[in-house]
Amino acid sequence: MHPVDRDRLVSLRREFHRHPEPAWREFWTTARIVEELDRIGVDDLFVGPDALDADARMGLPADADFDAWRDRARDAGVDPDRLDRLDGGHTGAIAVLDGDRAGPTVALRVDIDGLPREESDDPDHHPAAAGFRSETGAMHACGHDAHATIGLGVLEALSDRDFAGRLNVLFQPAEEVVGGAAPMAESGHIDDVDYLLALHIGLDHPTGQVVAGIEGFLAVSHFRAEFGGEGSHAGGHPAEGRNAVQAMATAVQNLYAIPRHEDGATRVNAGDVGGGTAANIVPEQAYIEGEVRGETTALMEYMRDRADRVLDQAAAMHDCEVGIDTSGQAPSAENDPELVDVVEAVAGRTEGVESVLRHDDLGGSEDATYLMRHVQDRGGKAAFVCVGTDHPGGHHTATFDVDEDSLPVGVAVLADTITHLGREAP
Amino acid sequence: MHPVDRDRLVSLRREFHRHPEPAWREFWTTARIVEELDRIGVDDLFVGPDALDADARMGLPADADFDAWRDRARDAGVDPDRLDRLDGGHTGAIAVLDGDRAGPTVALRVDIDGLPREESDDPDHHPAAAGFRSETGAMHACGHDAHATIGLGVLEALSDRDFAGRLNVLFQPAEEVVGGAAPMAESGHIDDVDYLLALHIGLDHPTGQVVAGIEGFLAVSHFRAEFGGEGSHAGGHPAEGRNAVQAMATAVQNLYAIPRHEDGATRVNAGDVGGGTAANIVPEQAYIEGEVRGETTALMEYMRDRADRVLDQAAAMHDCEVGIDTSGQAPSAENDPELVDVVEAVAGRTEGVESVLRHDDLGGSEDATYLMRHVQDRGGKAAFVCVGTDHPGGHHTATFDVDEDSLPVGVAVLADTITHLGREAP
Amino acid sequence: MHPVDRDRLVSLRREFHRHPEPAWREFWTTARIVEELDRIGVDDLFVGPDALDADARMGLPADADFDAWRDRARDAGVDPDRLDRLDGGHTGAIAVLDGDRAGPTVALRVDIDGLPREESDDPDHHPAAAGFRSETGAMHACGHDAHATIGLGVLEALSDRDFAGRLNVLFQPAEEVVGGAAPMAESGHIDDVDYLLALHIGLDHPTGQVVAGIEGFLAVSHFRAEFGGEGSHAGGHPAEGRNAVQAMATAVQNLYAIPRHEDGATRVNAGDVGGGTAANIVPEQAYIEGEVRGETTALMEYMRDRADRVLDQAAAMHDCEVGIDTSGQAPSAENDPELVDVVEAVAGRTEGVESVLRHDDLGGSEDATYLMRHVQDRGGKAAFVCVGTDHPGGHHTATFDVDEDSLPVGVAVLADTITHLGREAP
Amino acid sequence: MHPVDRDRLVSLRREFHRHPEPAWREFWTTARIVEELDRIGVDDLFVGPDALDADARMGLPADADFDAWRDRARDAGVDPDRLDRLDGGHTGAIAVLDGDRAGPTVALRVDIDGLPREESDDPDHHPAAAGFRSETGAMHACGHDAHATIGLGVLEALSDRDFAGRLNVLFQPAEEVVGGAAPMAESGHIDDVDYLLALHIGLDHPTGQVVAGIEGFLAVSHFRAEFGGEGSHAGGHPAEGRNAVQAMATAVQNLYAIPRHEDGATRVNAGDVGGGTAANIVPEQAYIEGEVRGETTALMEYMRDRADRVLDQAAAMHDCEVGIDTSGQAPSAENDPELVDVVEAVAGRTEGVESVLRHDDLGGSEDATYLMRHVQDRGGKAAFVCVGTDHPGGHHTATFDVDEDSLPVGVAVLADTITHLGREAP
Repeated sequence: MHPVDRDRLVSLRREFHRHPEPAWREFWTTARIVEELDRIGVDDLFVGPDALDADARMGLPADADFDAWRDRARDAGVDPDRLDRLDGGHTGAIAVLDGDRAGPTVALRVDIDGLPREESDDPDHHPAAAGFRSETGAMHACGHDAHATIGLGVLEALSDRDFAGRLNVLFQPAEEVVGGAAPMAESGHIDDVDYLLALHIGLDHPTGQVVAGIEGFLAVSHFRAEFGGEGSHAGGHPAEGRNAVQAMATAVQNLYAIPRHEDGATRVNAGDVGGGTAANIVPEQAYIEGEVRGETTALMEYMRDRADRVLDQAAAMHDCEVGIDTSGQAPSAENDPELVDVVEAVAGRTEGVESVLRHDDLGGSEDATYLMRHVQDRGGKAAFVCVGTDHPGGHHTATFDVDEDSLPVGVAVLADTITHLGREAP
Repeated sequence: MHPVDRDRLVSLRREFHRHPEPAWREFWTTARIVEELDRIGVDDLFVGPDALDADARMGLPADADFDAWRDRARDAGVDPDRLDRLDGGHTGAIAVLDGDRAGPTVALRVDIDGLPREESDDPDHHPAAAGFRSETGAMHACGHDAHATIGLGVLEALSDRDFAGRLNVLFQPAEEVVGGAAPMAESGHIDDVDYLLALHIGLDHPTGQVVAGIEGFLAVSHFRAEFGGEGSHAGGHPAEGRNAVQAMATAVQNLYAIPRHEDGATRVNAGDVGGGTAANIVPEQAYIEGEVRGETTALMEYMRDRADRVLDQAAAMHDCEVGIDTSGQAPSAENDPELVDVVEAVAGRTEGVESVLRHDDLGGSEDATYLMRHVQDRGGKAAFVCVGTDHPGGHHTATFDVDEDSLPVGVAVLADTITHLGREAP
Repeated sequence: MHPVDRDRLVSLRREFHRHPEPAWREFWTTARIVEELDRIGVDDLFVGPDALDADARMGLPADADFDAWRDRARDAGVDPDRLDRLDGGHTGAIAVLDGDRAGPTVALRVDIDGLPREESDDPDHHPAAAGFRSETGAMHACGHDAHATIGLGVLEALSDRDFAGRLNVLFQPAEEVVGGAAPMAESGHIDDVDYLLALHIGLDHPTGQVVAGIEGFLAVSHFRAEFGGEGSHAGGHPAEGRNAVQAMATAVQNLYAIPRHEDGATRVNAGDVGGGTAANIVPEQAYIEGEVRGETTALMEYMRDRADRVLDQAAAMHDCEVGIDTSGQAPSAENDPELVDVVEAVAGRTEGVESVLRHDDLGGSEDATYLMRHVQDRGGKAAFVCVGTDHPGGHHTATFDVDEDSLPVGVAVLADTITHLGREAP
Repeated sequence: MHPVDRDRLVSLRREFHRHPEPAWREFWTTARIVEELDRIGVDDLFVGPDALDADARMGLPADADFDAWRDRARDAGVDPDRLDRLDGGHTGAIAVLDGDRAGPTVALRVDIDGLPREESDDPDHHPAAAGFRSETGAMHACGHDAHATIGLGVLEALSDRDFAGRLNVLFQPAEEVVGGAAPMAESGHIDDVDYLLALHIGLDHPTGQVVAGIEGFLAVSHFRAEFGGEGSHAGGHPAEGRNAVQAMATAVQNLYAIPRHEDGATRVNAGDVGGGTAANIVPEQAYIEGEVRGETTALMEYMRDRADRVLDQAAAMHDCEVGIDTSGQAPSAENDPELVDVVEAVAGRTEGVESVLRHDDLGGSEDATYLMRHVQDRGGKAAFVCVGTDHPGGHHTATFDVDEDSLPVGVAVLADTITHLGREAP
């Protein structure tokens, strides 16, 4: 294994941090990753449309959104031919590195998208003080800049090929909309994977701590419901309208009132709603962007069935139409204990790791579960590893930041685990 | 009385039509009116802050909105010093013309604001075909371009001073947000008015028809409720949030369910609502822009009291705060029969008028009622006059247009009525 | 005309007052009326099933309710054969009296049912003090005891046959459930009626006042919705239930929120609701007894269509079934001015009448409108007459009572009007 | 230990089965238990008011309900003096038996109330076929007849005093309303208990199976909310009412919509609701009988706080008052593993026991948790033991029945466990 170059990792991470791009618009990010992979030298490389089953993508933005971010990437120096390949939401990449001897096929999944939110410009916020605050209006507020960096770092560390088997690193787009894992799972590139490692940084664990297997993924389904009625003058013709806001409000009340299920935890949220145009017009349009979750996939599906029923009948009650789109979805998943054993053991002897937890609960959702299940359904094993990092603000907040000391720790734990898995091969 | 110059009226109306500006941003419009008044020569002129009680303004937009429209007006050639006087929502003007002999004080109210909507570019739409379609993104979709034009036409017609008494023409801003009449009423300029005439064109009456007294004004109150709760992760911490969208939806359901009042017609509408930011965040903010109306001011106030109670308790139910602002309000009002008699009689003998209706019902709201009541409370008389015009699309729609033949009819009916009122003076 | 015997009227009214019976259970009342008619001697008499189109009855009670009231009537001395004829909700009667010369056919409608409520036993309540308080648990709290009495008094007054034409007196059951007028209208007995007079006493008008034509009837539709879901243990199996109370509550919220109609007054009320059996069982059953009203029949039907849609979709939203029955219905109606003229003129010269109002508004509903419309549709004329009476408590309250001085006034006004109508005949 | 007399147990159980009495009205049942205790001969006996802290009772019925059941008990032969002591809801008993040597204090809790439901008269239903179907209109549909019987059987078995320490058998009333355990816990009689055993029969476990420690108790709170508004005529004065049904429906919708808590399972149910009196009256009164539950007491309290907030604000929104009473409440609780060990070991060697489960989940609520916590808070240990029995219908259904072979099994397991605990004493 090549020694880990902390400075290069820090420099790369800051570059990514300055250029966050939201789901399916990771144009600059993908291009920069490819550039770095060219430098490292990998054995195979699938970029954008070649790394995805495009039909399986979820949570795509409107076309106009692609244009603005593509233009931004071009202005930031991305090669136009490269951009043409990525356009329309064909982002991400899969890099393949072959060890110098036979062994298992391992996949490492890192996600690369940013969040559609402003970054703090408080001088106490390190990226602002140190000059690598976001330049795009979006923000790496969940540490995916570190994920992409660690993915590249692992490839570089193992680029001496001193390991058994094959390594695929999945630079996955669109995790934040729960939409990028399914198309990568369906791409055909991970069908033969023996071990899948998914990575997350932070999650309230400090620098120096590693969690070998994050548990408690809630299956999730994101949806968008569009209600259509008919406008009318609220003073002159109130009864001529078909009120889409009444339909939406009735739906919101009843979505939250879906009966709790005895088989386990469930969630529902109408997180982004709106409707109408002016105080004096009976509202013609309304929408709900919402989600349901379940401790199991079956519980999530129970909630989703009930939610669809509520949405349909709320529209019908107010003589409106409704269209419901699934904009993202992921199952629940569990770690394989054998693989967690390996991570736990390796992490315990890695420099920079001060404590190792076997398990902790996420209590949220992650579309890595799609990849985990895909691998497990074909006989492989999967684990979701957390590399701790001190982070001053919570995930998704304006002051989120990572402790860059955790970057080499992450590279070491993962590269060592991959090497170890080769040794374990029969 | 000077003869009416149809060509000038048409030309002016098309200029206004090309430059519609929404409520409190009538910068170009006010400047153009003043320019024209300077040409006509009036005896006194109060512009912007001098024509208003600024504290009584309602429905003001956000500061940033002023900037865009002020810049637009500057680019369109308005003098920067003039603009400075109008800035921050100090638009409109009052022109005073003294007759050559003693007599009553008459006020004529014309409103001047456009609507925040796109104008049709269909070649069948006359303004599009004839090259005077809106250039601003807003639209004169309610005929206020014609109102301003007729107001100027009446002043020009009477500028020979051959009438008894004094004429005030009120070029009122911000009618569409029910926010401009109150500050003009409270300005002090109409306290001594003996007769108030308010004008509207169209209202489904054809060219050649005049309605001497429009009735059936619904008292109206516009409000904006801002709900504030607390965000939380919908998967990980659903119970830590205080859900502003639940508060809003509960309020919407119960606003529409306010008991009907036995004393007369009432209305309620939650016309523009929204809340939250993303499917997976418990919503922290939500809002309702709504309105209530009543056949009488008391009925409107009944509805408003009930609405405030619903909004307050819906917020409290979900542990949220709510702030409620009144963004516009107007009472009901009635015409004085003696003044309607005069208009009816004068209109019946005016050239171009083919039929005169004594009354018709508006079935909507108009903040002219503020001015009518202000005058009536001080012993004056008021009437709301409709000058018919063929209009292909309905009021507030993208294809609304006026028949320009109605412009000289409007000037003639109003100027004759004003002259006649002077003759009636004791 | 025979002179009016005040003592007999008072005595009869007190008898009826002691024996109030609710809708479709007027067994004793009908029998007592028939007994009195036998004494007076009429020319034709249709009782119970012969006076009704039984299929058109609405608002029938459960079978068990008939038994209790029939037994009570038997115990109070009603002939068992008579009771058998009336059983199962075949109450009421039509008496026919022929004048001694040709003339118009006039119908007088009086309703005879009591209300299902307790009567006050306060010593200040005259029936309690004077010993004729209700003995049945129900109460004549709307004056129908006086109506039946006046109907009999008019027949007795005119039993000298000194009038032209024919008089039908309709002793109508089940007005309080808006269910008895339709079957009497459809009975065939009033198809040839030239003039219909309907009577109400009181309505906040004092003794000595007569209103010639009561206006402002709201069309009304009563309905009962039964929701059926599926019970389950609320702790152990909350998601297995299909919650009928959630369906009902969603319906209640949305019934009250049906958009107000621009064409006139409407009403909606969910006046009696319930559901479920125990705190720890997901409710399997729920119901709503409600009503909608409209200033016109079309407005009532608009409300009813919307209400049915709300009920259907609220059930479907919660995976429940719903059945909706119409339990009573009446249209709006208007008086014929020619007939109001006659009543007004006659009342103005009747002894005991101190003031006559041409019109007043009911602001409620009355199924007499069915009869009025039936007559009017066939070319006849109708008026709804109010005979004032001082009443200490409001209609439908526990202390309602009538001033017995108004009984002879009512008989005189109606008998004179009927006589007068014969004189007017061509 | 005396041998167990199966015939006596069967005979007793059938007697109890014929005389089920609902919560706080166990007059006959308590008297019959006392009679049997007198026969057995115990060392101390606390009956009715002496066994309870009367102020801590919850879920008491209306006074009129006491009368009917007390009269029934008198008619069934209970001594009037005994009845006077029990009247007003002072039922239940605590029997004390001292072993012939020093040792621990053990409490055995059996509950004795029936359910307010009809029993099946299907000939396939054994109690119906064998002639011991309920004679009271209530039903022992949860096996408390067997519980009382086993409690007496254990006392009889140990009445040779051949055990160390002291045994208290708690014949607890009012379990079905979650209201009888608290007053027994607060009575002072169990403050020094070292071991508490609570018993339930069945719970879907077959005859011959024993569960040493039932887990998964949901903490529960039952409440009754009474809404008070103001009635008015729905046609004539809709706006004068203050609509209690609107308040109730708003509350129902929002109760079910209380945000799910991330810390564990919660429940909410509006299981019995109603309001209003007639379709045409704006409803003046409404109520909700409901409950909340939580996997922990804290979660139940979270739900209850939110529920109270919803109820309060729903009332305020519709200008109504609301009173909220807690009609029953129980915490969650856990078994002590040391005591479960003992039950498990003893059951494993008891004749008639074919299989022993260490744990199973109840997924419901039980007010035995009050007693368990009371003992545990003072240093004692507690376990909730299930004695399996084949039962054809589910608990609380009309065809529930117990396999009487399980009666001697229950006596043996419990008496042996108590004896064993004495041996274990230091």
